[in-house]
Amino acid sequence: MNELYLDDFHVGQKFGSGRLRVETDQIKPFAAEFDPQPFHLDEEAAKSSFFGGLAASGWHTAALTMRLLVTSDLKPAGGVIGASNEISWTRPVRPGDDLRIESEVLEVRPSKSRPEQGMIKVRSTTLNQKDEPVQVLTASLVVPRRPA
Amino acid sequence: MNELYLDDFHVGQKFGSGRLRVETDQIKPFAAEFDPQPFHLDEEAAKSSFFGGLAASGWHTAALTMRLLVTSDLKPAGGVIGASNEISWTRPVRPGDDLRIESEVLEVRPSKSRPEQGMIKVRSTTLNQKDEPVQVLTASLVVPRRPA
Repeated sequence: MNELYLDDFHVGQKFGSGRLRVETDQIKPFAAEFDPQPFHLDEEAAKSSFFGGLAASGWHTAALTMRLLVTSDLKPAGGVIGASNEISWTRPVRPGDDLRIESEVLEVRPSKSRPEQGMIKVRSTTLNQKDEPVQVLTASLVVPRRPA
Repeated sequence: MNELYLDDFHVGQKFGSGRLRVETDQIKPFAAEFDPQPFHLDEEAAKSSFFGGLAASGWHTAALTMRLLVTSDLKPAGGVIGASNEISWTRPVRPGDDLRIESEVLEVRPSKSRPEQGMIKVRSTTLNQKDEPVQVLTASLVVPRRPA
């Protein structure tokens, strides 16, 4: 896979990804370590919660999204290095959900102070197997310019 | 620990947290699963990268921050349920870093359409053992109103 420089990106460019399935036996350990709340840990307790049933931690969805992004064709030279992000969770992720992402380049901006690099803004929508969005991440990534 | 309702929050309210230390043997497995890039996995490769040395995935820092937030005194009734977030990484997190958060309530807003709940906006700054900020997270959380 080719590595991409700032010069290789353009607004409107789209990237797909593979798929990643998330099961109860991943949801519960992630939550136990990072987000120990009943609706991520226990089916019975989750029923009467905001989520109405066991749901993955949003940060688990974010981490899975990063895996999908890093292993997609969106490969900036030097790596996927985020500076700032907006992230929203639009639907619960349930055991057995099969996730993928659709990424679109929203901005490409050379740096004024550092001519060897720039930023791209990329929106990555995480979709479940019914093509319902579960998360929308808009990330600003640091990308090097192609060496002369 | 008391659970907090929308009515218990006010702008300017602050919450601290415990501390959480992150070591190489957590940084690498997290990265292998969710963010498999050389600068999170291999000391030698990391030296010549953007980070200049092994650094935790930003999503690992985010997940650790959630752990610190969920186990802090900021305990909304019904749980810490995020809707949307802004997150930026201001410094690398290194092996041996000892993290804590400082949270401050920026907004308290009753819902117009759902009188039983509202939103609070909370900025949680994650600091290392030198009190340097490594991440700033601004989260909008769903919080129930106190039942009549």
